[in-house]
Amino acid sequence: MISKDNIANEYQKIQDEICSALEALDGQATFEEEQWERPGGGGGRTRIIQNGNLIEKGGVNFSAVAGELPEAVRKSFNTQERNFFATGVSIVLHPRNPFMPIIHMNIRYFETGEDTRWFGGGIDLSPHYVFPEDARFFHTQLKAVCDMAHPDFYQRFSKRADEYFFIKHRHETRGVGGIFYDRLKPENTELSWEQLFDFSLQVGRSFVPTYSELAERRRDSDFNEDNKQWQYLRRGRYTEFNLVYDDGTRFGLETGGRIESILMSLPPQANWQYNFQPPAGSAEAETLSLLKQGMDWVK
Amino acid sequence: MISKDNIANEYQKIQDEICSALEALDGQATFEEEQWERPGGGGGRTRIIQNGNLIEKGGVNFSAVAGELPEAVRKSFNTQERNFFATGVSIVLHPRNPFMPIIHMNIRYFETGEDTRWFGGGIDLSPHYVFPEDARFFHTQLKAVCDMAHPDFYQRFSKRADEYFFIKHRHETRGVGGIFYDRLKPENTELSWEQLFDFSLQVGRSFVPTYSELAERRRDSDFNEDNKQWQYLRRGRYTEFNLVYDDGTRFGLETGGRIESILMSLPPQANWQYNFQPPAGSAEAETLSLLKQGMDWVK
Repeated sequence: MISKDNIANEYQKIQDEICSALEALDGQATFEEEQWERPGGGGGRTRIIQNGNLIEKGGVNFSAVAGELPEAVRKSFNTQERNFFATGVSIVLHPRNPFMPIIHMNIRYFETGEDTRWFGGGIDLSPHYVFPEDARFFHTQLKAVCDMAHPDFYQRFSKRADEYFFIKHRHETRGVGGIFYDRLKPENTELSWEQLFDFSLQVGRSFVPTYSELAERRRDSDFNEDNKQWQYLRRGRYTEFNLVYDDGTRFGLETGGRIESILMSLPPQANWQYNFQPPAGSAEAETLSLLKQGMDWVK
Repeated sequence: MISKDNIANEYQKIQDEICSALEALDGQATFEEEQWERPGGGGGRTRIIQNGNLIEKGGVNFSAVAGELPEAVRKSFNTQERNFFATGVSIVLHPRNPFMPIIHMNIRYFETGEDTRWFGGGIDLSPHYVFPEDARFFHTQLKAVCDMAHPDFYQRFSKRADEYFFIKHRHETRGVGGIFYDRLKPENTELSWEQLFDFSLQVGRSFVPTYSELAERRRDSDFNEDNKQWQYLRRGRYTEFNLVYDDGTRFGLETGGRIESILMSLPPQANWQYNFQPPAGSAEAETLSLLKQGMDWVK
């Protein structure tokens, strides 16, 4: 069995690789890092990029925390164990250009005691304007990563993402989905711990090539003030999802995590306009028509 | 016992009075009204004002809904009754001038069956910049309204507001508090239903004179871009409170209320800037130092 130090080290490397690649891709802004320690044990490296050429605001965070498991978490995880260890990398990038999508990635490992441990994570895309060919490219990339690990993974995990990244009160998906997985272990995957760890790393390492291609396609698209206003409204939806439904965010807020690291996912600017309806036939209306569950982007 | 029609009618009148007064006060924008019906029974009048001289975005909503009580609500209210009636007026105003405060008011009545009924409501103030003299004026007004009904009300309800309007994850209050009350009935107030109803109306009718005085004081204050940016950050906090903690908002989202009416409380624009710390000694730092629990503004 791979050790937790081993996992944390590899995750930290992935954070480094992604930050270097994103700085090169942005070409203007660089990450600011804050190292923090958790009073109960462990800590993290929060890295934030702001006001870039490509990225308006984004974060690439690494953490490896350990300590006593809060009572509420013991209940929700149905365990009597008292100590836990958790490590992960989390990314949210809000691009400047409204035709570029918001992207989110997370890879994580959790353990408590001898018997309770798992990998979780995912990547999903929230375009302000949905381009079906980009959604198809994105899902094809994810499918390739999944297929290398297990023939069922893409179907299982893209379905999970489709269910999870849903803004119930708006009857809208957050974006075009992606993959989402949790509590992966040998018993429910037919894979060894080593293979699951490797899958987790593959997901992490697929981020840069996928995002680079999306940036190549859309970062220099011309846009006007109406496109920007629409971007702000879509970021409002993203904010609604994160504050109302996102398990990681709510878990962090409830257990007293480092607030500025947790809420780095929030956009630099979000707007709400009462009852805004895009004109029929507009690109904005077309996007709304595609933000629904059950789309099959790789077909 | 006053009838539910009676209550709904008086609340509707209060909505009318407040909207007329706010249009006169704004001097530029007028309310747009949408009447809606609830599939299960009843409906409401959502009134929104946007891009005004005084008010950048705000709503004054009335609703009177009836029907079958959702199972989740039956559980949380600990009742076996199947039908309910609820009516109320809700206001949130986001002013244009950063030196003007955000204000929120709600008065409501709920009943299910013969034995379960109550009044609830409150008013609270969220200044972007705290002026202690304005907070004192505001609380003095509320105390006067409370004192007319019961000598204990102000202390009880301002304490409730202090506990309730708290952004736990930020360790900050949402603003300078106000009053918050719920489940008021003769058994827990020494007042008759008529007196409780009258208290509810007095709270509603105190809104216009209180807000008018605050507008008089701050609406024409000079402000610069830094003040506006700070306003956007404070609106971000307001958004966090409403989406994460506000019972009314969460209840509405979970029970499938009319989304655009529920989320009218969200600001026209909110910003998030990573780890923003106002300079020591600045007006913004002074405001943060006052956004804490246990302040006694009327002393």
